[in-house]
Amino acid sequence: MIDTTIKPYIDTHQPQFIASLTEFLKIPSVSTNPKQNASVSNCADWLVTHLTQIGLTDVHLHPTAQHPIITAEWGSDPTLPTVLIYGHYDVQPEDPVSLWDSDPFEPTIRDGYIYARGASDNKGQIMCHINAIESWLNSHGKLPVNIKLLIEGEEEIGSPNLFPFLDQHAKSLQSDIVLVSDSPMIAKDQPSICLSLRGLICLEIELKSMASDRHSGQHGGLAPNAIHVLTRIMSQLKDENNQITVPGFYDQVETITPFLESVCNKIPFSVSEYQDMLGTSTLISEPNIHPLACLWYRPTLEWNGIYGGYTGDGVKTVIPATATTKLSCRLVANQDPDTILAKLKAHLHDCTPSGFQLTIKNTYTGCHPIQVDPKIPAVAAAEKALTIAFNVPPMFQGEGGSIPIIHAFKETLGIDTILMGLNLPDDNIHAPNERFRIEDYIRGTIASATFFDEFAKTHNTTPKKP
Amino acid sequence: MIDTTIKPYIDTHQPQFIASLTEFLKIPSVSTNPKQNASVSNCADWLVTHLTQIGLTDVHLHPTAQHPIITAEWGSDPTLPTVLIYGHYDVQPEDPVSLWDSDPFEPTIRDGYIYARGASDNKGQIMCHINAIESWLNSHGKLPVNIKLLIEGEEEIGSPNLFPFLDQHAKSLQSDIVLVSDSPMIAKDQPSICLSLRGLICLEIELKSMASDRHSGQHGGLAPNAIHVLTRIMSQLKDENNQITVPGFYDQVETITPFLESVCNKIPFSVSEYQDMLGTSTLISEPNIHPLACLWYRPTLEWNGIYGGYTGDGVKTVIPATATTKLSCRLVANQDPDTILAKLKAHLHDCTPSGFQLTIKNTYTGCHPIQVDPKIPAVAAAEKALTIAFNVPPMFQGEGGSIPIIHAFKETLGIDTILMGLNLPDDNIHAPNERFRIEDYIRGTIASATFFDEFAKTHNTTPKKP
Repeated sequence: MIDTTIKPYIDTHQPQFIASLTEFLKIPSVSTNPKQNASVSNCADWLVTHLTQIGLTDVHLHPTAQHPIITAEWGSDPTLPTVLIYGHYDVQPEDPVSLWDSDPFEPTIRDGYIYARGASDNKGQIMCHINAIESWLNSHGKLPVNIKLLIEGEEEIGSPNLFPFLDQHAKSLQSDIVLVSDSPMIAKDQPSICLSLRGLICLEIELKSMASDRHSGQHGGLAPNAIHVLTRIMSQLKDENNQITVPGFYDQVETITPFLESVCNKIPFSVSEYQDMLGTSTLISEPNIHPLACLWYRPTLEWNGIYGGYTGDGVKTVIPATATTKLSCRLVANQDPDTILAKLKAHLHDCTPSGFQLTIKNTYTGCHPIQVDPKIPAVAAAEKALTIAFNVPPMFQGEGGSIPIIHAFKETLGIDTILMGLNLPDDNIHAPNERFRIEDYIRGTIASATFFDEFAKTHNTTPKKP
Repeated sequence: MIDTTIKPYIDTHQPQFIASLTEFLKIPSVSTNPKQNASVSNCADWLVTHLTQIGLTDVHLHPTAQHPIITAEWGSDPTLPTVLIYGHYDVQPEDPVSLWDSDPFEPTIRDGYIYARGASDNKGQIMCHINAIESWLNSHGKLPVNIKLLIEGEEEIGSPNLFPFLDQHAKSLQSDIVLVSDSPMIAKDQPSICLSLRGLICLEIELKSMASDRHSGQHGGLAPNAIHVLTRIMSQLKDENNQITVPGFYDQVETITPFLESVCNKIPFSVSEYQDMLGTSTLISEPNIHPLACLWYRPTLEWNGIYGGYTGDGVKTVIPATATTKLSCRLVANQDPDTILAKLKAHLHDCTPSGFQLTIKNTYTGCHPIQVDPKIPAVAAAEKALTIAFNVPPMFQGEGGSIPIIHAFKETLGIDTILMGLNLPDDNIHAPNERFRIEDYIRGTIASATFFDEFAKTHNTTPKKP
C-alpha cells in the first residue's frame, strides 16, 4: 500500500533521524524560564535551519511578544489536499534534576529509549512528521500532499501568542486537515486515534455572610457562617449517584452511541489496576456507564480548591465571613461552554439563601468539546497509516482532557484535527526521565509518511479554488 | 448597707487610685512578645511591691517556665469566708501603634476615660479589687473576709503555667468563691453578673480520597474528589433549621428554664442593630428561641476553617486527594466535652462513604460549660454590691464564649466563680485606644469592697475545719 521506496528509506536513515533528534533535544528550550529565553530562541533557529535543509519552502520565524512561531510549507498544488501539522518546540522545566538518571539535555539511549527532556513532549513526535517530509522529498523529490507546518514555542505556557496568530493567519493556514502527535498511545505496540476531547469551563465562587470574621463564642448561634452556607450550596450540585443537579446541565449531552460504546469495550480496562494507580479503593463512576465513557464521553463538575476561615496550625475559634471554592466542568459534545456557565450561575444563585452574597468570578469558557466524525477520510487514512507502521490496527479512543488550540483550529480554520499520539503512557512527560521509544520514533515516521499518501488517495481530488 | 466609712474613703482617694493604675499601665507587660520579657517581669515586681505596701501578707512571686504568677493573702480566720480574686497583669500587644490617639503605655485621661493598653483588660479591673482591699485595710485595719489573690502574667497567651499551678496549689488556694472582673457589663451604667459560660471542643477533620491530586481532565469522572466528599459529610451535620444532626448531640442540653428566658427578656436586644453590627442582613437563630439564648444557652457547631486542592491565584484543574476542615462546638450545661466529641466522631465516620479515609486530629476537650446557680449567696452579695455601687440593680447575663480557667477553678478547687465584669462593651480591648471609664473604675472599687461585706454577711459562718 505504501510507496515501496519510502519505508526502506526511513529504515536505512534511522541513524540520521536519531542524530537530528539528538541535536534538537540538546537545546534546553524551557519556555517558562526567562533565563532560558536565549535557548528557546536558539531552538527556533535550529528548526528554521533544519526545515530549510530538508527542502521545505517559505520557512518563516515569526517573532511574538515572547517566543517565536515557526511556519513552513511545501507545495501549493490545488489538486492535492493540504495537511497542516502542528507541534511545539518548547519543553517543560527539567526540575528536579536530581531525579534524572542522565542529564536531561544530554540525550542518552538506554534499552531502546532515548531519554531527554522533550523526547516525547513534543520534540520526538514533531520530528516524526518532519522526518516523514524529508523522506518523501529525498526519495521522491515531492510529497503526495501540500504541507503546512506550524510549530510554536509556548505550548507549555498556554500558547498565549498562538491564538491571535491563528486569527491573523487564518487564510494562509487554510488546509484540509490538522495532524497532531502530542499524546500517548493506548499501550505499548497499540496505536490509537483520539476522536474526542472534552471542553472546559472554570469559575470561582465566593460566599460572603457578614462584614468580617467573628468570635465563635460571642456570636456563635446567630452569626452566619460562610463555610457552612457555601458547603451547603456545594452539596446541592451533585446527587448521591454523582449526577450533576444543575437544571439543564445534560440537555446537550448525547446518549453514548453504540459506536462510542464499542470504542470503550475494545480497550482493555481493569478497574482494580486503575484504582491501584490512583491509590484508592473507590471510584465515582456513574451507574451503568463504562468507566472509560465516564472519562471521555460524560461531563464532570469538580471542586478544584476551597478555602475559608482559619487555615493555619492550631485553633482559631472564628466564624468565617467569607469562603471561596474553585470549580471546573469538563464538557462533552454538544455542550456549549457559555450556555453551561449560565445554567450553573443561575442554579448557584437559586441555591443561595437570602441574606448571603454569592460572587462568581474568574470565569473561563474558552474551550469547547471536540468530536471528530470517524467517517471522515482523514480518519480512514490515519487508520491505514498506523496499521502499516505498527503492524496492528489502531484503536479509537477519547480523551478526558481539553486542548484549547484544537478547538481553535476548528473554530478559526474550520477544520478537524487527527490526534495521532505516538508516545507511551509511561514515557514520563512533564517528569524526570522523560523518554521516547526509538522503535516508536521510527514507526511514527512511517505512520506520518504513509498518512500523507493515504490521505491524498482518499481525498476528493476535485481542484479547489486557489 | 455598706459600711459607711468605706465609700467616703474610696471617693476621697480617687487620685491615689488613678495614680496607682497609671504606674501599673506604664509597664508594657506584653506577654506574647519575648522582647518585653523584662517588662513583664518588672510588672510582676511592681505588683509585689504594691500588694505589700497596701498591707497584704504572704505576697509571693512564683517563677514559672515563662512569666511569674503572683499570690497574696490577707487573713485566715476560720469563721470568715474566703474570697479568691483572680486576674492578670499581662496585656495584649499594642500593634498597630499608628491607630492609637495617644501612646499605649503613656496613660492619658480624656472625656472621663483612661486610655492605655491594659486599661480594661485587665489592669484596671484587677486594680478595682486591689483598691477595695486597700480601702478596707486603711479605713478599718481589717477585711470582713479572708482574701486570696491570684494574678497571672500569661492570660493573653492561654495560661500555660496556671493550670498546673492550680493543681499544685489546690490546697492553699481553697476558698469559698472566686471573684473575677475580666469582661464587659451589658451596657453603660448597666452592671451585670454573668451566670454561665459555654464549653468548647475543637477538632480537625481530614478526608483523603486517593494517593495524590490528579488531573481533572484525564481522571475526572472516575477519580474521587476529596473536597466533594468532605463537603457532603459536612452538609450532614446540620439541617435547614440549624439543628445539629449528630445523634445524641442534644441529649444533655437542658430546656431553657423560665429563669433563663427571663434573663434574656430583660436585656434590650435589637435584631436589626445586631445585624448592622455584624454587617449582615440575616441571622441563623434557631426557631422559637430568643436570640440571646441562641448565643448563651444553646450549643453550636461551627466550621472555623477549610482548605483543600488549589487555593492560589488562577486555575489549576486538579482533583484534590485531600481536604481538611477545622470544627468547633460551643457546649452548654450539662454537655460533657468528651462525650460530645465521641458522638461527633461516630457520626462523622458513619457519614463517610466506604473507600475514603477520614482522620480526626488535634482534638481539644479541655473546656466544660459553666453554670452558676443564681440562688447561691455569692450571687446575692454581688447583686447588692453592684446595686450600691451603680445605683441600679445588675442584670443577669450569659456569655457565649468559654474561659477554660473558670472551669479549672470549679474542677480543681471545687468552687464557683462570680463573673462581675466592669468595663464597657466599647472599651476597645485587644484593639487600639483601649480604655476604662474612670467612673467605672471607682464604682468597680466600691462594688468589690461592698461585695466583701455582703458576702461575709450572707455566708454560713459555721467555723470550717482548718
